[in-house]
Amino acid sequence: MKAPELAFVRSQRVARLATITPDGTPALVPICFALLGNDDPVLVSVLDEKPKSVPDKDLARVRHIRREPHVSVIVDHYDEDWSRLAFVQVKGTARLIGPDDPAHVPAIAALRSKYPQYRSMAIEQRPVIVIQPYRTTSWGI
Amino acid sequence: MKAPELAFVRSQRVARLATITPDGTPALVPICFALLGNDDPVLVSVLDEKPKSVPDKDLARVRHIRREPHVSVIVDHYDEDWSRLAFVQVKGTARLIGPDDPAHVPAIAALRSKYPQYRSMAIEQRPVIVIQPYRTTSWGI
Repeated sequence: MKAPELAFVRSQRVARLATITPDGTPALVPICFALLGNDDPVLVSVLDEKPKSVPDKDLARVRHIRREPHVSVIVDHYDEDWSRLAFVQVKGTARLIGPDDPAHVPAIAALRSKYPQYRSMAIEQRPVIVIQPYRTTSWGI
Repeated sequence: MKAPELAFVRSQRVARLATITPDGTPALVPICFALLGNDDPVLVSVLDEKPKSVPDKDLARVRHIRREPHVSVIVDHYDEDWSRLAFVQVKGTARLIGPDDPAHVPAIAALRSKYPQYRSMAIEQRPVIVIQPYRTTSWGI
């Protein structure tokens, strides 16, 4: 990711995650996310669903990622002045990590640093999606 | 789509379109869109890319849709008050229509009604993506 793209992604509060369903069609969900690392960061997002009506392993995004780890994430800025439209798309490989993974503590810390909302939520033991970018495209950045 | 979902989708200025690339991974792009029809509307979005550095048929979303018409569209509302987070995901079947299609004139009219920006743009002859929804999921609506 180039520096201006990275700055734009860092500035955004919400992204949309596209995964592939078992029938090969795309599925979308908005995610809160943080970047972990400086020069070549990964995206992290915690499974904080509430109420917990389904077990983690049955969440659509979890089932999809386990079957097909290639995902896409987009952040964008909409403006009625269309010369200011902008987006960054990050294609990446997703994996799920638990509290036993060395990246888990820093991921939770990064999310809590970005989102005060997480500081009072018990997410320390929650699975985290880690997305390793392999291609970035952008427009208007 | 239920009435509250429909109202939410109508209120949004930008959506994100997920398509499937030839290698089976998802691709994302923000789109301006309008709804056409009342009870069971389709989503329409015009190819207004500028500058026209690539022919229409070579645009990623066009190539993807021609190969795999199943797409997903998401609109969402982010709020720092997380009790107000909301999204609607529409899964649908996409097709491209030209000015010879009877839906083209009303599609352009719907887009110009929603976006004043289109009124001064020569989009009358531009291809339009028409997405027929087949499943809607939502959260916080």
